[in-house]
Amino acid sequence: MEEIGYWGKASSELEKVGASIHDRVRLTKGSLVFEGLLMPPADPADDNHVVVKLDNGYNVGIRLEPGVKIELIARNPSFKPELPEVPVKVKEGLPKVSIISTGGTIASRVDYVTGAVYPALTARDLYNVVPELGDLANIDAHVLFSIFSEDMHPKLWSEIAEAVAKRLEDGVEGVVVTHGTDTMGYTAAALSFALQDLPVPVVLVGAQRSSDRPSSDAAMNLMDAVTVAAKAPFAEVVVTMHGEVGDTYTLVHRGVKVRKCHTSRRDTFRSINSPPLAKVEKGEVVLLSRPHRLRDRERRVSLKAKFEDKVSLVKVHPGFDGSIIDYLAEKGIKGIVLEGTGLGHAPHLSFNSIKRAIDSGVVVVMTSQCIWGRINMNVYRTGVELLRMGVLPGGDMLPETALVKLMWTLGQYRDLEEVKRIMLTNLVGELTERTQHSDYLR
Amino acid sequence: MEEIGYWGKASSELEKVGASIHDRVRLTKGSLVFEGLLMPPADPADDNHVVVKLDNGYNVGIRLEPGVKIELIARNPSFKPELPEVPVKVKEGLPKVSIISTGGTIASRVDYVTGAVYPALTARDLYNVVPELGDLANIDAHVLFSIFSEDMHPKLWSEIAEAVAKRLEDGVEGVVVTHGTDTMGYTAAALSFALQDLPVPVVLVGAQRSSDRPSSDAAMNLMDAVTVAAKAPFAEVVVTMHGEVGDTYTLVHRGVKVRKCHTSRRDTFRSINSPPLAKVEKGEVVLLSRPHRLRDRERRVSLKAKFEDKVSLVKVHPGFDGSIIDYLAEKGIKGIVLEGTGLGHAPHLSFNSIKRAIDSGVVVVMTSQCIWGRINMNVYRTGVELLRMGVLPGGDMLPETALVKLMWTLGQYRDLEEVKRIMLTNLVGELTERTQHSDYLR
Repeated sequence: MEEIGYWGKASSELEKVGASIHDRVRLTKGSLVFEGLLMPPADPADDNHVVVKLDNGYNVGIRLEPGVKIELIARNPSFKPELPEVPVKVKEGLPKVSIISTGGTIASRVDYVTGAVYPALTARDLYNVVPELGDLANIDAHVLFSIFSEDMHPKLWSEIAEAVAKRLEDGVEGVVVTHGTDTMGYTAAALSFALQDLPVPVVLVGAQRSSDRPSSDAAMNLMDAVTVAAKAPFAEVVVTMHGEVGDTYTLVHRGVKVRKCHTSRRDTFRSINSPPLAKVEKGEVVLLSRPHRLRDRERRVSLKAKFEDKVSLVKVHPGFDGSIIDYLAEKGIKGIVLEGTGLGHAPHLSFNSIKRAIDSGVVVVMTSQCIWGRINMNVYRTGVELLRMGVLPGGDMLPETALVKLMWTLGQYRDLEEVKRIMLTNLVGELTERTQHSDYLR
Repeated sequence: MEEIGYWGKASSELEKVGASIHDRVRLTKGSLVFEGLLMPPADPADDNHVVVKLDNGYNVGIRLEPGVKIELIARNPSFKPELPEVPVKVKEGLPKVSIISTGGTIASRVDYVTGAVYPALTARDLYNVVPELGDLANIDAHVLFSIFSEDMHPKLWSEIAEAVAKRLEDGVEGVVVTHGTDTMGYTAAALSFALQDLPVPVVLVGAQRSSDRPSSDAAMNLMDAVTVAAKAPFAEVVVTMHGEVGDTYTLVHRGVKVRKCHTSRRDTFRSINSPPLAKVEKGEVVLLSRPHRLRDRERRVSLKAKFEDKVSLVKVHPGFDGSIIDYLAEKGIKGIVLEGTGLGHAPHLSFNSIKRAIDSGVVVVMTSQCIWGRINMNVYRTGVELLRMGVLPGGDMLPETALVKLMWTLGQYRDLEEVKRIMLTNLVGELTERTQHSDYLR
């Protein structure tokens, strides 16, 4: 997790005296004097206040109104947050779980001296944040990268898949991947296709609130993710996150059927068109649906980590005329997933563009912006016409999963007919024959 | 509703003998003879069968295998489905409700002789489909157009708004607009902005299954929509559709807060980030939340029906590099609604494109692909950077509603600063200050 600095007025005032975050500063306003460590801003959009941690431990925000004087008292260029040393000892009899960190809110810890938030980089850091982890597994932690998840990219999916495969080859009971929540669903789908024939579970986990907040979901999510990695009976790529707003249980979602559905709630992740695979309650994994593949440490993972990034997800809407499709086809796109309306429709205005793209070799897959339900292009004339043009129906795949699958399939296969065949074939649970009505809005 | 014809092999075999749908044909296969009316195909994607309605009333599908002979017995060029005449009489004391038909599954009726589905065009047709309507209101029916809703367009929203305003000027207790379900949410938002200061309700309604199916939701939806138009206490643009899969009640959703969430379920429409406005149960309208505007027939509607169609909705995803934004800006787009991740983020890869677009005068609004929740671009650095570039936060608006609002605002105002101010201001309930957690996944 990157720290947010000052900007605008606050930044220029601080620059005048050469003060950086964690330097010792003094702000004087008439008879009031505030002296302490300069902290990161409380509200990153506000350039009118600076935050100082006083020697009594309190943080104060001071408004930079006329008359406020800033002085630099002492530089602190080598500032390093210190944490109490917690010995990491291997406990006999506990399963070995590997944690791979890619960034995001969960992989952070707070320095209690300064209040600043830092990436949790080592097994020791993780034990510091969540001491209970030491009772669940012997943890082996690796930082792969530390990025905001909105910057996740198909090329990075390949790196994560390779890193996971390496841990699996080393022989672990399960792998946990910490990830920002924004695009965790996409990465979960990507790993589902890239890591087939898994011997043990691969569990993505994140937090909606960072571990410096009292309401953080980080500790419980991380503990339950390690529990799933260590002892769940299945060997699939899953997401483990809060099941409701309280701290009573987490849900385990299949990587190809999961979606972030709320900007801020802790139970933001939901299985779509499918029940969750399991829940974790009081440290126990309870199955909620039938696993596709059971744990078997003797199995060798099949690593297929290449993704084609020349693939776009395009959402249609009233006024959509298809010119974006022409543009993408002209610049050499290999595949387009349409997020159509209803059962899989697009405006007739865009038909010529769709036809031209397909005729020039672009693979076009139809999904629905409804999110729940499934594509059926045989009901109305519009759907039939699109099928005749060569648009592939995406079944009950999420648009996001269809995008990832198309990137993966085009990364694996050269022959277009083979690509089309694979897109219509269920590989890892992404396409299901029947959807239960009870899987709506849960 | 358009009929679907034959294609491929079936079409060419029928053309050879000059047979069209509803002509009398005879198919001979060895000693088997099938004679009757040629019907539309049962499965529009299948070009291997033709359907014939025998004189005993049964439909049979006949496979066009080698040896099957087709003969044209009698042409039926003037085929017109006949319905029993139901007298439409004005009943004293009933409220007057205007129904404007734009197309879709609800505005159809079945000819029981042929099984074919036709648009229900007149008040008489509607009374034929749903005789109970005659007890609810004196209905005045108009066909504005008859299109699939995936072909709905901002220019057609203007026509609908003008047609509704005309009925309101004539003095009715409410207006019902029948509409295909695919894009009904977009049109509901469009009418919410185009028809302000309403005196009475404007109710959009559709059906997930056409009225020829035993499980059709058409009748109940239409009755409840007319009930809302005739007697609901509020004067807003709403959608009235099934509330659950049974036939126990319908829900009344605000036009700016509603979304189609399932490809096929009858309770596909859901209020997002807001409770529904009301439910209709056993003919009674029960309020579920506080109306924004109460019915007052003396009020004059404020018609603002112009929409700018040079506006796009663009969904970001891993691998999204912003080149689509450059393309749109170069071809003269006026506004872009981004469907970002989480609290309102986009990949840093796309930042230069977003900045260039804004600097060249394109209005860019951020919404979230999470669907539920609200944009908050002050939490993470990515959001703060986008705000600094001039991206407008879309609050808790649905991406679809933000698109429609931007089309409307750019259609109404020339001054860019005014456009930006309007986008950040609540006009008709599209932006709410607080979202209840209980409004998630309902």
